[in-house]
Amino acid sequence: MTVHERRYQTLRQLVDAHLHSLVRQQRPKELTDGCRYVLSAGGKRVRSTLLLLSCEAVGGDVRRALNASAAIELMHNFTLVHDDIMDNATSRRGRATVHTRWNVNNALLVGDVLLGLAYKQMLHTSSAKLHQILEIFTKGFLEVCEGQALDLEFEHRTDVTLENYFEMIDKKTGRLISTSTELGALVGDGTARQVTALRTFGRHLGRAFQLQDDLLDVVAEERQFGKRIGGDIIEGKKTFLLLNSLEKAKGKDRLALLKVMNRRSSTSPFNAKEMTAEVRNVASVYLSTGAIEAARKQIQKDTLKARTALSSLPAGRGRETLLWFSEMLL
Amino acid sequence: MTVHERRYQTLRQLVDAHLHSLVRQQRPKELTDGCRYVLSAGGKRVRSTLLLLSCEAVGGDVRRALNASAAIELMHNFTLVHDDIMDNATSRRGRATVHTRWNVNNALLVGDVLLGLAYKQMLHTSSAKLHQILEIFTKGFLEVCEGQALDLEFEHRTDVTLENYFEMIDKKTGRLISTSTELGALVGDGTARQVTALRTFGRHLGRAFQLQDDLLDVVAEERQFGKRIGGDIIEGKKTFLLLNSLEKAKGKDRLALLKVMNRRSSTSPFNAKEMTAEVRNVASVYLSTGAIEAARKQIQKDTLKARTALSSLPAGRGRETLLWFSEMLL
Repeated sequence: MTVHERRYQTLRQLVDAHLHSLVRQQRPKELTDGCRYVLSAGGKRVRSTLLLLSCEAVGGDVRRALNASAAIELMHNFTLVHDDIMDNATSRRGRATVHTRWNVNNALLVGDVLLGLAYKQMLHTSSAKLHQILEIFTKGFLEVCEGQALDLEFEHRTDVTLENYFEMIDKKTGRLISTSTELGALVGDGTARQVTALRTFGRHLGRAFQLQDDLLDVVAEERQFGKRIGGDIIEGKKTFLLLNSLEKAKGKDRLALLKVMNRRSSTSPFNAKEMTAEVRNVASVYLSTGAIEAARKQIQKDTLKARTALSSLPAGRGRETLLWFSEMLL
Repeated sequence: MTVHERRYQTLRQLVDAHLHSLVRQQRPKELTDGCRYVLSAGGKRVRSTLLLLSCEAVGGDVRRALNASAAIELMHNFTLVHDDIMDNATSRRGRATVHTRWNVNNALLVGDVLLGLAYKQMLHTSSAKLHQILEIFTKGFLEVCEGQALDLEFEHRTDVTLENYFEMIDKKTGRLISTSTELGALVGDGTARQVTALRTFGRHLGRAFQLQDDLLDVVAEERQFGKRIGGDIIEGKKTFLLLNSLEKAKGKDRLALLKVMNRRSSTSPFNAKEMTAEVRNVASVYLSTGAIEAARKQIQKDTLKARTALSSLPAGRGRETLLWFSEMLL
């Protein structure tokens, strides 16, 4: 285990222990059980770790950032629980989603309560900049909702452009990640320049992170990815690969892409063999049109911008661990 | 129009104008349209008016409380939109509910966004006590969620007691009303004693308000009430009347009440004639067991406690308007 890995494990355990201490048993039981269930599902704790590492990278004390890091993780989990309802998702992190395990009503309330707990935690943050922190937190929350609304809107649209796509992922995925890094810098009492640098770092990291997710849908090994390969194609998701490929494909390749573009996730009544054939065919179009290459280049571009943003931070272990963590993510 | 009525109308218009200015047209359209739809539905603006009047009653300037009053109204509307999803309600204030007019996904997000806007507004409040204000606001939000969860739990329980009932309404209805009055006093820079007095006032007013709602279900004129008479009986709601009556009823009266107690709102497949007969019968049991009288007495008791709490406030128009408004509500 490297020094960075050890540091990450330490912080992650710190976050986990803190999150577990938040939900006390109270009535009604279903609500508390639902909150505990969500918080015990594990996950990489990407956002809370990024917040703590960003705090450290500007010379702050992570113990002072623990409440804020729990807040961002609670906010993230609130979005997951509500998104899963909206997407009719049955499983998450290898377990039944809250609305599947209980019901939609309980999941709705569990999401609401997680959000309430997020604000409660954030309000426990001791910082002279708490007002600014809460404003950024709230703005992030609103943008994540907008991103999710755009994502839902895209399901019914066949005219989504790459520009629309970037707006959506910047809000839905990027925004909470840049909020994490920005808030870490603020809680750590970083300078205005450092706060901006860490926000920029988070924005590009978030974008690269989402593009990577799009890419893994067609190039990963099922085992390694942990999701069904080609799921985005089967569901007709408007991914970077689809939109970029559509700009270049012709003839029957184009028709194959338009079939994906026009698909609604709810209407995919084909059998396993047909699915595999379609995924293979569309993936080969992504390859031949250069969309996969374009995605890789875009990821490199954003990764470089993220790295560059960090160069204005003081050199040292904090910055190095942050760099290591962002590389591990991608 | 009395001087109090005029003051109420002025404040209500102030709140309405402020709320309308909050939702700007932005993408995605469905989300903005949904938020506007909710905020344009009118309503008495009970909570925001109570906040402003409480501010005035301690000598504060209502203009400084306008953001907080919008915040409490946004929070209230967030609970309505999500509650309507959970209760499968098709109409509210004479119009289709958000999930009926659009769909559940949009309603879920509209609710989330209203909550985000609530925090955004609250953060615009200029007060040295903003941290305390936000803590009370967040605690209120969490308790309202718990109250709603209890209400949902009661649907499936046949052992609900009067004590359980009071816990539920104190959280679901009372809490946001006492939060409104308490925050009004805080924004208006009231003394600690005045803040406590206004919180107590709000708590008893909220309880009386909910009991009145239970009572009107069986004693009101349909036209005047604006809801279907006997709706609570048909839906098997565990109201004060049902629970109080059950403590005393015997024989076939008791059986009639247990039928209501054991009913699930989703399973009421009877015709209009049967419904009317059942409502009439159960209402007569409420009357003969003294439950209606008990509800009236409890309302009087809480109203008196609410009034008494106000006696520690400075005499003057602010306090008088607050008294007038609470009487008008009941």
